[in-house]
Amino acid sequence: MAKRALMLIADGLGDRPIAELSGKTPLEYASTPNLDKLAAAGICGMMDPIAPGIRAGSDTAHLALLGYDPHQYYTGRGPFEAMGVGLEVKGGDLAFRCNFATIDGQGIIVDRRAGRIDTGTADLAKALDGMKLPGGITAYFKESTAHRAGLVLHGQNLSDQISDTIDPHADGKPIGKAEPLMPDAQSSADAINTFVRESIRILADHPVNRDRKARGLNPANVILPRGAGMTPHVPHFTERWGFGGGAVVEVGLIRGIARYVGLELFDAPGSTGGSDTDELSIARTALVAASQYPFVLVNLKGPDLGGHDGDYQLKIQMIEKFDRLCAAIAASLTPDDYIAVLGDHSTPCSVKDHSGDPLPIIIHGSGVRTDDVTSYGERSCARGGLGRINGMDLLNILSQFIDKQEKFGA
Amino acid sequence: MAKRALMLIADGLGDRPIAELSGKTPLEYASTPNLDKLAAAGICGMMDPIAPGIRAGSDTAHLALLGYDPHQYYTGRGPFEAMGVGLEVKGGDLAFRCNFATIDGQGIIVDRRAGRIDTGTADLAKALDGMKLPGGITAYFKESTAHRAGLVLHGQNLSDQISDTIDPHADGKPIGKAEPLMPDAQSSADAINTFVRESIRILADHPVNRDRKARGLNPANVILPRGAGMTPHVPHFTERWGFGGGAVVEVGLIRGIARYVGLELFDAPGSTGGSDTDELSIARTALVAASQYPFVLVNLKGPDLGGHDGDYQLKIQMIEKFDRLCAAIAASLTPDDYIAVLGDHSTPCSVKDHSGDPLPIIIHGSGVRTDDVTSYGERSCARGGLGRINGMDLLNILSQFIDKQEKFGA
Repeated sequence: MAKRALMLIADGLGDRPIAELSGKTPLEYASTPNLDKLAAAGICGMMDPIAPGIRAGSDTAHLALLGYDPHQYYTGRGPFEAMGVGLEVKGGDLAFRCNFATIDGQGIIVDRRAGRIDTGTADLAKALDGMKLPGGITAYFKESTAHRAGLVLHGQNLSDQISDTIDPHADGKPIGKAEPLMPDAQSSADAINTFVRESIRILADHPVNRDRKARGLNPANVILPRGAGMTPHVPHFTERWGFGGGAVVEVGLIRGIARYVGLELFDAPGSTGGSDTDELSIARTALVAASQYPFVLVNLKGPDLGGHDGDYQLKIQMIEKFDRLCAAIAASLTPDDYIAVLGDHSTPCSVKDHSGDPLPIIIHGSGVRTDDVTSYGERSCARGGLGRINGMDLLNILSQFIDKQEKFGA
Repeated sequence: MAKRALMLIADGLGDRPIAELSGKTPLEYASTPNLDKLAAAGICGMMDPIAPGIRAGSDTAHLALLGYDPHQYYTGRGPFEAMGVGLEVKGGDLAFRCNFATIDGQGIIVDRRAGRIDTGTADLAKALDGMKLPGGITAYFKESTAHRAGLVLHGQNLSDQISDTIDPHADGKPIGKAEPLMPDAQSSADAINTFVRESIRILADHPVNRDRKARGLNPANVILPRGAGMTPHVPHFTERWGFGGGAVVEVGLIRGIARYVGLELFDAPGSTGGSDTDELSIARTALVAASQYPFVLVNLKGPDLGGHDGDYQLKIQMIEKFDRLCAAIAASLTPDDYIAVLGDHSTPCSVKDHSGDPLPIIIHGSGVRTDDVTSYGERSCARGGLGRINGMDLLNILSQFIDKQEKFGA
């Protein structure tokens, strides 16, 4: 059987010592017998997703872990948020973050968030999705949470060299227009200005808005795009690495990135991205993916939720879920299989956001040079045999273990 | 209170084992109870100022530690020596190292070092400083030690693409001329040639030289510039990092770099840059700076002097001074403050110059992931939880601890 590598990621795993946990981190405090067993049998170390001290996002971290330098391929939030809401995004597309907003009859913005609308946006989005714009450009539009949405313009010769002036970022002001900053951005500016104008026409009398007005709520009667970004052309994962891969990941942003680089998405029944997610279903689905591809990316969102909420009890529970997930996968592996266990970034409960602290990592499989580390934690792994590596190193390490890396030189 | 970060640097701190110290390094041998306490409470590691094995200068090391890649921003000794002698240097300036020299009536160099002149050079320099040159260029000139001096040309469209042929680098030869190597360097060549010609006219009958001749000494009757280098345009520290900083540093070169990147200099009374410096005054001044800025750079020159002299006893004494300096600062910090303790480069007593050995580093503050290191030394810190980092990483690590780093991605 061909060798395989699985990258098992606990989102936002890393943390800092917490006084209420006797100075331990959630990972150090949690009961993780299976991860500890993997640490004891494998080689451990610390990993900086981008570089020491850099506060990586989940998007930039995953790009790096998949071998795509985020300094080259991360072109701002527009394209990556669009991936996150589930829009198909291709190299050369022009993407935006958007708000549903409310304007009055004179085109003055009454409410940039349309009363923080939280129902009906899927129906509103459907009315705009697929809109044909001048210059052979097509708009793909999808709602996100609350008043947020993503927009992708697909066509030839698009450019992000347009002014970010449609959304005045304040109520009581008129909607602006995008202006080309370079001559060849005229068609992109025309397209997005047309999209905004058409959104007013189409949404004005939409049933969702009729209903909102009847209930005394601000109608979502215009779309305000901002943060234009070109989607970079990336080499397909198979082209980049010489082998294909699958992904079992929970949240939109990471699903989007996986699809964007060409990993096949496998949906695990009961995977919710929340604290109630079915980790054993995720494990089973990862094994299905691994029966079809030599590489599988797995991401469990839970630990990051605890970090962002500052809820170390939740984070501990989610880490214990991750322990069971990894155990279920490890139990079904053959001696030809390799797994890497890691986080994508740190989300300390004390910070409630991503920090620049490095992540503990285990690499487990036949022939790895074991070390003295016997538990999986931030401080134990700092004494491991791997030392301190970067996220971009990881797939190089795994690809040579599974005999799929060309020699550089003779 | 807003979080703050202090970078406490012992210049030339790193060393190699010394037989007379029972195989210990000066840092390992010195009595440093306060540094050891910080090491025990913080996270330790090793740092290469530029990269492993690279013999960094104090200038290139400090550029890196402040987050300016020396491969991009270090453009030779001209600009940095000019900073070192205390000249104001700005991006776009053309700077030179200079000698005071002696010529005869035929323009032949009699003595490239003007009898190693060591008094009166300040008066001679004053006679040249501020000279107006063709093309709207102004010359700023300042004496350094002995026969050495710095020169900065300030104006529009300067270029370092000129031949280094004014100074023939040997006695008995005529003074040469700078020639443009590119057409647009003509005005720079003209300016520096004019400066040399004018220096001969102005210095010929200067009282200092009249006095020297009366005493049978070679007059300093010409300036020989060499090593032209353009000063790079650097982003201001506040622009680079999003927060401002102060500096309490002793010697000209590092003062120059601090000012050049936009740190505010704070002068500590009794700070001499020598072995008699008042380390407690430096600590007090650093705390004043930290009351005004979230970042403060501190550099104690002493340990480097011991290294360059090959005098390990002196180096040990200076390290113990540094221990007291760090203690005085640490005693006044709040739980919101972070300090990094480190050297800028190694100056082993056995080498009497900078080596490429890495430096021990401590990062101390709330939430750092402590390790088992309980003493501050080259070998103890090599087992620390930080692993091995680069100088350019340090401010990334500190800026995220003090909540002043933008997230890269989402």
